[in-house]
Amino acid sequence: MCADKAGSEAGFLARLQRLARHPAARGFADDCAVLAFGGETLVVTHDMMAEGVHWLPGQDEADIAWKLVATNLSDLAAKGAEPVGVLLGYALGSADTRFLEGLEAALVAFATPLLGGDTIAALGPRCLGLTALGRATHRPVPARSGARAGDGLWLTGALGAAMLGYEALRDGRGTPDETLAFRRPRPLIAEGRLLAPHVTAMMDVSDGLLLDATRLARASGVTIAIDSAAVPLAPLAPCAAALRWGDDYQLLFTLPAGRQPPVAAFAIGRVLPQGEAPLLLDGVAPAAGERLGYEHGASAPDPC
Amino acid sequence: MCADKAGSEAGFLARLQRLARHPAARGFADDCAVLAFGGETLVVTHDMMAEGVHWLPGQDEADIAWKLVATNLSDLAAKGAEPVGVLLGYALGSADTRFLEGLEAALVAFATPLLGGDTIAALGPRCLGLTALGRATHRPVPARSGARAGDGLWLTGALGAAMLGYEALRDGRGTPDETLAFRRPRPLIAEGRLLAPHVTAMMDVSDGLLLDATRLARASGVTIAIDSAAVPLAPLAPCAAALRWGDDYQLLFTLPAGRQPPVAAFAIGRVLPQGEAPLLLDGVAPAAGERLGYEHGASAPDPC
Repeated sequence: MCADKAGSEAGFLARLQRLARHPAARGFADDCAVLAFGGETLVVTHDMMAEGVHWLPGQDEADIAWKLVATNLSDLAAKGAEPVGVLLGYALGSADTRFLEGLEAALVAFATPLLGGDTIAALGPRCLGLTALGRATHRPVPARSGARAGDGLWLTGALGAAMLGYEALRDGRGTPDETLAFRRPRPLIAEGRLLAPHVTAMMDVSDGLLLDATRLARASGVTIAIDSAAVPLAPLAPCAAALRWGDDYQLLFTLPAGRQPPVAAFAIGRVLPQGEAPLLLDGVAPAAGERLGYEHGASAPDPC
Repeated sequence: MCADKAGSEAGFLARLQRLARHPAARGFADDCAVLAFGGETLVVTHDMMAEGVHWLPGQDEADIAWKLVATNLSDLAAKGAEPVGVLLGYALGSADTRFLEGLEAALVAFATPLLGGDTIAALGPRCLGLTALGRATHRPVPARSGARAGDGLWLTGALGAAMLGYEALRDGRGTPDETLAFRRPRPLIAEGRLLAPHVTAMMDVSDGLLLDATRLARASGVTIAIDSAAVPLAPLAPCAAALRWGDDYQLLFTLPAGRQPPVAAFAIGRVLPQGEAPLLLDGVAPAAGERLGYEHGASAPDPC
């Protein structure tokens, strides 16, 4: 659960953070809770999606199910955790069979069992929730808070494909292949496991690179400098928008200077001592109030 | 997640059950998922509540938060599990501060930390979800499926107080004390731990004694005979309704014949070999289609 969000949510989250005193909660400033259990480390996350907010009207329920699973497993991936299972919170709708088809497809694709959950008949726009449980494969479990001045900043792959897919779907154009990146993101579980022993900090880019990098910088008490020309983009994706769009679920991580990552990745910037701004884009701090990504609390489905 | 539910939900749940092939899911026919992890046993549950379905219009958000925590911890109690922490799925509303007050009160009362979750801004009636994690204190973890012919059937305490509290609250009468049982149920965590080593089957009564006993009978492949005169009732609670009302969160369990429970409890019936009906009330099987409790899929907040 992230703390730096906009609008009416900010005060609520600040108060919620005061309740999250247990160290496993990581101050609600990380992708997952991380908890010693037995002789292992349990990594847990819970994400919700709401009709009219997190998916387009009329969108295929199979894709919604897939995304609900993928976004939660991406949080596990960012901690280098291996999925153990999921619990579903489901409000019945009009296309439940399609939902189940997408759910099964995602669970099979990511080799993750369905362990339980709850089904309700709710009124009005629907809410869905998913809890994902994982097993840490490396301890300490990577946090957002470990970046140190001098580290390099890395990204596993291109941004913007989900944005282009979203726009095509919204506008009723594009082949299924062209909208795939938005409809069926893939959590980078294997990459997260390979990276976990090496990174100083790691998270997934779910809300936009600039916003998520700002969160990583704040959690670590550093400034992050991004070189926009070094950020890999999907073909035809406009840079300014792609840097502010989430949904690609790439992993963003830091490595000590001179270290090369064990998976394909792009060096996109570096970690500086904490300056006045948490983020510098091509050497310049974003203007106060500038939109850096998808801020929860907005009610439009367009996250840019 | 229960499988024997009404209406449009039945087909969905049957299909969902086919996805729940992992033994930890217990076929979606138990209160919780039960999973070996790190040399211990993790017990996990997720329940949702929806505005207009699970709480009264205008109900104090502090009570809603309390109930969300208590109902999930009651599922852990029914498995003899000790709470480890919860994750919250929260749709922002108009009384978030009151919600947090009730959340904190419940977490303090039940010594359970908040570990994480998600907050969203949704449209229309709100949904809330909670995931509760627990540690099994006894293995095997009690299931609904362990009742055997010859066992005695037991209940930890009176039914009907929550029903009377609900009716008073709905009608705008009753002191805070008189509505307390409905507003602030208490999961029987200590009782569940004490019972776990002794019971052959256990569950919490969340949807009505007759319905939940039917579920236990079906999971165990037995018939359960209840003696209505032996069921303890709250003062002034009408018997027929109290047997069909949940929300008291008493524990229902079976013990081998002649065994006495280690906590205060009432002998309310016995377990018979599987007959034509899963349930006999005073020797008579309920009529087909007779309402035995709160069936999910109904949209009215009145569970009777």
